[in-house]
Amino acid sequence: VISTTRKDCAALDADDPFKGRRDDFAVPEGTIYLDGNSLGLMPKAVTARVTHALDVEWSRDLITSWNKHGWFALANRVAGKIAPLIGAGDETVAVTDTISVNLFKLLTAALKLRPDRKVILTDTGNFPSDLYVAQGLNSFLDDGHTLVMVEPETVQDRIAENVAVVMVTEVDYRSSRRHDMRGLIKKAHAHGALVIWDLSHSAGAIPVDLMGADADFAVGCTYKYLNGGPGAPAFLFVHPRHHGAVAPALVGWWGDAQPFAFRTTFEAAPGIARYQVGTQPILSMVALDAAMEVWAGIDMRALEKKSHSLCRVFIERVEERCGLKLAGPREFESRGSHVSFHHPHGYAVMQALIASRVIGDFRAPDMIRFGFAPLYNTHVEAFDAAEMLAEILDKRLWDRPEFLQRKSVT
Amino acid sequence: VISTTRKDCAALDADDPFKGRRDDFAVPEGTIYLDGNSLGLMPKAVTARVTHALDVEWSRDLITSWNKHGWFALANRVAGKIAPLIGAGDETVAVTDTISVNLFKLLTAALKLRPDRKVILTDTGNFPSDLYVAQGLNSFLDDGHTLVMVEPETVQDRIAENVAVVMVTEVDYRSSRRHDMRGLIKKAHAHGALVIWDLSHSAGAIPVDLMGADADFAVGCTYKYLNGGPGAPAFLFVHPRHHGAVAPALVGWWGDAQPFAFRTTFEAAPGIARYQVGTQPILSMVALDAAMEVWAGIDMRALEKKSHSLCRVFIERVEERCGLKLAGPREFESRGSHVSFHHPHGYAVMQALIASRVIGDFRAPDMIRFGFAPLYNTHVEAFDAAEMLAEILDKRLWDRPEFLQRKSVT
Repeated sequence: VISTTRKDCAALDADDPFKGRRDDFAVPEGTIYLDGNSLGLMPKAVTARVTHALDVEWSRDLITSWNKHGWFALANRVAGKIAPLIGAGDETVAVTDTISVNLFKLLTAALKLRPDRKVILTDTGNFPSDLYVAQGLNSFLDDGHTLVMVEPETVQDRIAENVAVVMVTEVDYRSSRRHDMRGLIKKAHAHGALVIWDLSHSAGAIPVDLMGADADFAVGCTYKYLNGGPGAPAFLFVHPRHHGAVAPALVGWWGDAQPFAFRTTFEAAPGIARYQVGTQPILSMVALDAAMEVWAGIDMRALEKKSHSLCRVFIERVEERCGLKLAGPREFESRGSHVSFHHPHGYAVMQALIASRVIGDFRAPDMIRFGFAPLYNTHVEAFDAAEMLAEILDKRLWDRPEFLQRKSVT
Repeated sequence: VISTTRKDCAALDADDPFKGRRDDFAVPEGTIYLDGNSLGLMPKAVTARVTHALDVEWSRDLITSWNKHGWFALANRVAGKIAPLIGAGDETVAVTDTISVNLFKLLTAALKLRPDRKVILTDTGNFPSDLYVAQGLNSFLDDGHTLVMVEPETVQDRIAENVAVVMVTEVDYRSSRRHDMRGLIKKAHAHGALVIWDLSHSAGAIPVDLMGADADFAVGCTYKYLNGGPGAPAFLFVHPRHHGAVAPALVGWWGDAQPFAFRTTFEAAPGIARYQVGTQPILSMVALDAAMEVWAGIDMRALEKKSHSLCRVFIERVEERCGLKLAGPREFESRGSHVSFHHPHGYAVMQALIASRVIGDFRAPDMIRFGFAPLYNTHVEAFDAAEMLAEILDKRLWDRPEFLQRKSVT
């Protein structure tokens, strides 16, 4: 096998059906940015939209902007842009709060639907905050609810009649391992269990078909592959069959059937709206709304193809040039759009890469992680990043006090 | 008694110790804005700060901005600016999420501290969303916890040994009636009950002394008198004596002792940090941080004096010229910084006022509401607003189909 050359990569980029999209983003000069799975690049459309929100909406039109500039409808508008990317139906997605807060809402709703079951099943590859949400709730309830944590590969086998909820992240934030969504839901439903998906490393990276897979609940992130801006509001999904059946433990006036009637008794809004709680951060929501414009008409199947192609080049080059051990499975259909390699000095290696303007990140204990955002990353970037990594390893450029000493929290 | 003239008002404004602050805000031309109790004016410093966050922080420095531009420390920085305005100590305030989400956290923490008590006591003047938070939690728990709602004037009398938590809004969002914070806390503590304050209509409007009053818990809003921007993140306060004793039911990685260790078991951070849950909306937080700069060195006692002076002029003029009935008590020490009057056609009257560029709002069933933000509103504005109201009532200018028909949700 003759491996891919830089010229081959340039040819792949020339044929890239998404190559025009890169111009929609502010791309920092002289940088290979492979951390779009943590914070996506800024879509250029954001600047004008946020400036308008400051100069015209907040400054000039003030409180009247809730109607005049559509602040009331804003979160719903964003939801309508996210839904097609995750196979969600109309009026099944809410954009609000943070991933963890939304997970808490969904978990309480799901437990209410399975009052006689005490087990929440998860795996060790779930994002820690998701585990904390369940642990915090269980600790508060103190009534026998337990979080059972198994290895990702054994989740399906562990599903039984005592499981109320299976709570997993589709794509592992470290290894990129991907759960079999359809199979897991089918198994769970056969045993009367519900499933909550965390799509933080899926949305905008791989095709997701929530309705097709008969999913119950999902949460997800908008600031990674969706490029909504730092800490942009999260999303949640509830299948219509659960809409009227239950409300979360955490409710507020935005989830009331008539918020501006100011009644003293809560009456859950019909549909997905009951998962809204308080007033959302409009400036961040406006940025997210503008950012989501780049997704209009994107075919997620085609985008997945590009993701595989980028990851293939990078994995192949790193394995050939550096001999590092790949985290997660090798088959692309069982992976997300980021690639991690193990290295005993991973932290220092990543610091050296960042100093060389190749931006990835480090995940404890020993993983260097590289996100490939198929909307804007190129094959040449994947190639060059692997070359830089090879040079840093060959010359032990990471073996310097300033890289070895852990000073930052990221 | 000879009433205050417009000339008197101009003289009061000339002597106003805060008159220089008005220039710190973007003031819409030709408008008397008396809705700063709903959405405060934009401080001019916000534009440059948000532009920097887009052009330099997000676009260029991307993920490194968490350290390089202090995103990690941002919420704490804002907390440090809010704390002195509400008499909170160092490290007792967190800025995060929404008011309702924060209230939920505090309510679950408080109930955990009083496991043998089932009553949450509140009043009919509490903001509906606060009531909904308790109702939603009780409905989920389904274990005998009840929300007992009494008239605001009888809350203190109702406090007894079965009350776990008293949950009230200090200043009524409609009538402006203000609770006696010290008296209520003293009575509650004498009966072993805890108190959660909602300071949404207090912070930045009146002096609050949480530590001096021995308060347990509080939540509050940053987009009203604090001018943090539409839907800006909310704040919460926990007295240090409760910090280590309890964690809320809703926790996440930002409240963990070591978020970036990515451990599978939650360990609550010491201090107030455990009330942080997920990643916050940075663009909105940055705007809030810039907005809070106008509060540096503000003496809340002096600001309260101006608030009383503005409200006095307005109340006096409206009563004299329009004969409307004032909502809430007459004594200024028992009021906040907004003024409401009853009118059977309040909705239409407010629409007519807004059409005449006097911006207040309407609160069901019959109140027209005017917020006086003492940092930027003037006595002449109070005078002119009352004159406009008088003209609208005298000439029945509100009696038009376009004003009578309720089309908007605000």
